[in-house]
Amino acid sequence: MPNIDFSKTRLVVFDFDGVFTDNAVYTDENGKEQVRCSRADGFGLQLLRKANVDTLVLSTEENPVVSARCRKLKLECIQGCPDKAAAFKELCELRAIKPETVAFVGNDINDLEIMRCVGFPIAVADAYPEVIAAAIWKTTKPGGFGAVREFCEHVYSAKVNHARSF
Amino acid sequence: MPNIDFSKTRLVVFDFDGVFTDNAVYTDENGKEQVRCSRADGFGLQLLRKANVDTLVLSTEENPVVSARCRKLKLECIQGCPDKAAAFKELCELRAIKPETVAFVGNDINDLEIMRCVGFPIAVADAYPEVIAAAIWKTTKPGGFGAVREFCEHVYSAKVNHARSF
Amino acid sequence: MPNIDFSKTRLVVFDFDGVFTDNAVYTDENGKEQVRCSRADGFGLQLLRKANVDTLVLSTEENPVVSARCRKLKLECIQGCPDKAAAFKELCELRAIKPETVAFVGNDINDLEIMRCVGFPIAVADAYPEVIAAAIWKTTKPGGFGAVREFCEHVYSAKVNHARSF
Amino acid sequence: MPNIDFSKTRLVVFDFDGVFTDNAVYTDENGKEQVRCSRADGFGLQLLRKANVDTLVLSTEENPVVSARCRKLKLECIQGCPDKAAAFKELCELRAIKPETVAFVGNDINDLEIMRCVGFPIAVADAYPEVIAAAIWKTTKPGGFGAVREFCEHVYSAKVNHARSF
Repeated sequence: MPNIDFSKTRLVVFDFDGVFTDNAVYTDENGKEQVRCSRADGFGLQLLRKANVDTLVLSTEENPVVSARCRKLKLECIQGCPDKAAAFKELCELRAIKPETVAFVGNDINDLEIMRCVGFPIAVADAYPEVIAAAIWKTTKPGGFGAVREFCEHVYSAKVNHARSF
Repeated sequence: MPNIDFSKTRLVVFDFDGVFTDNAVYTDENGKEQVRCSRADGFGLQLLRKANVDTLVLSTEENPVVSARCRKLKLECIQGCPDKAAAFKELCELRAIKPETVAFVGNDINDLEIMRCVGFPIAVADAYPEVIAAAIWKTTKPGGFGAVREFCEHVYSAKVNHARSF
Repeated sequence: MPNIDFSKTRLVVFDFDGVFTDNAVYTDENGKEQVRCSRADGFGLQLLRKANVDTLVLSTEENPVVSARCRKLKLECIQGCPDKAAAFKELCELRAIKPETVAFVGNDINDLEIMRCVGFPIAVADAYPEVIAAAIWKTTKPGGFGAVREFCEHVYSAKVNHARSF
Repeated sequence: MPNIDFSKTRLVVFDFDGVFTDNAVYTDENGKEQVRCSRADGFGLQLLRKANVDTLVLSTEENPVVSARCRKLKLECIQGCPDKAAAFKELCELRAIKPETVAFVGNDINDLEIMRCVGFPIAVADAYPEVIAAAIWKTTKPGGFGAVREFCEHVYSAKVNHARSF
């Protein structure tokens, strides 16, 4: 992979399913859902906070299971965005964020448009081929198995190394 | 695998367990069941809708967990069919469907008879050997890990390529 | 593996955890348990019924999750047997079963003693080494991933082939 | 791995997530959590009891799911320790435990400090690289797949062999 300077990352936006999870959903007889996440990812998010990088989950579907997990991770969560790219652009305007300072971590084709808007489009190891093709960096770990942690560590060390070089 | 013209597919009938799931069932102390599905499959079903291909789940057992998942996927679901082939034939008559325009995606031996009735008998990657032997096409992904999505994409591109060739 | 004549099997006794499941237990905040079983195993049990082979689950722990799964599979279930071998011997006397006509399928060291009592001690693919060493036959599939089905099919074809040879 | 004399182990302290589990958490719509443990681990803990080795779970987070599993395993559980090393030192003083007779089994970076305090720092097979580097022994099985059992068996046989050598 090319040598990209991640030290400029100001905000990391994550897709939820397939990034924080293995893209599986556990459904019970009442249609109640459960997802499988990794305890490892929390440490990664802490690193980003330490480095003053903002974090955000952007999810197509309005889903209580996503809210529940984000609440536990103290992670802001914007849901019910059928058009993630539009939601993202609106957000950038409202909060005066420059898209070129944003990383987006995704896994499926509904992430493609937003990936074209950000400075750092990232794919998890088991993302769909189109997503991997659109990414400038790919985790070695699959979604739900530490992919979030891995990318956070990567940004964190870029920040630390950059700071050290002054 | 032989080069089959899937552009003639008008209806895709899916078995549920082992196709939408990894054939596992999670049972709790009250006998309540939960199954593991893939978020990826929804996109595949959307493609088939776009291409005007009908979809249907046909399941041996009457099971609320199947109903719940199908409801979420907005997928018609016919359950409680100990004899799937008979249920299928009845359905074809009632709805004036030609079996040779139907694909059936299955994984286990109770799918064999219906597979002999349809134009496009399909097996998931981890189907039982008898089912793979009876299929004309096999997904590369196992049930519950994107097999449904993969077959839907395959039918969709056959449709699109066929349309383009005119 | 040696060529064993399984046509003499009259009863198959199964351990539950690690045989019908992958030996995992899912625990929630109230200590309620859930286990992961395979839908494939039901077909195997049906084959044994067809061949008039009796089936039974013998489990160390008294556990409602085991009862629940066995109820669904219409499988007799004897639980709360810290000493499985003793429980088995008592059962053989009560029901006039000859231990040499019994197969036992196990995965862990608490199955060793009963395995020494039966005619056909069987290990699942991922059983503990001591159990594999004590077995005369080993499934190729791990517990919870079709091991039960595989052994049932094996006994069934031994029965069918034996019947044919007359 | 070097030949370490584990016969001196008097207490084994376990991290919970990633050691008793595969480091996954299953979250439902209400934020209720579930974890996946191995039935195999119970036998290991029994061996340690037989050898008069004490056992203890030390966990960063206050989590009812950890309490529930430990209750089932009859395992003492100290939770809500953001600083595990400090909690451990306090415990050693209160109970007059010599840290050099203690083994700690961990998987993630928040285990590093306590690993430096104990005589036997242990990593599970799938621990983070820093943890493996800090360990003097590593299980061959991953957390949640029998790692606890494996280490318990290892200590037990060291104890038994040591006793025999007198």
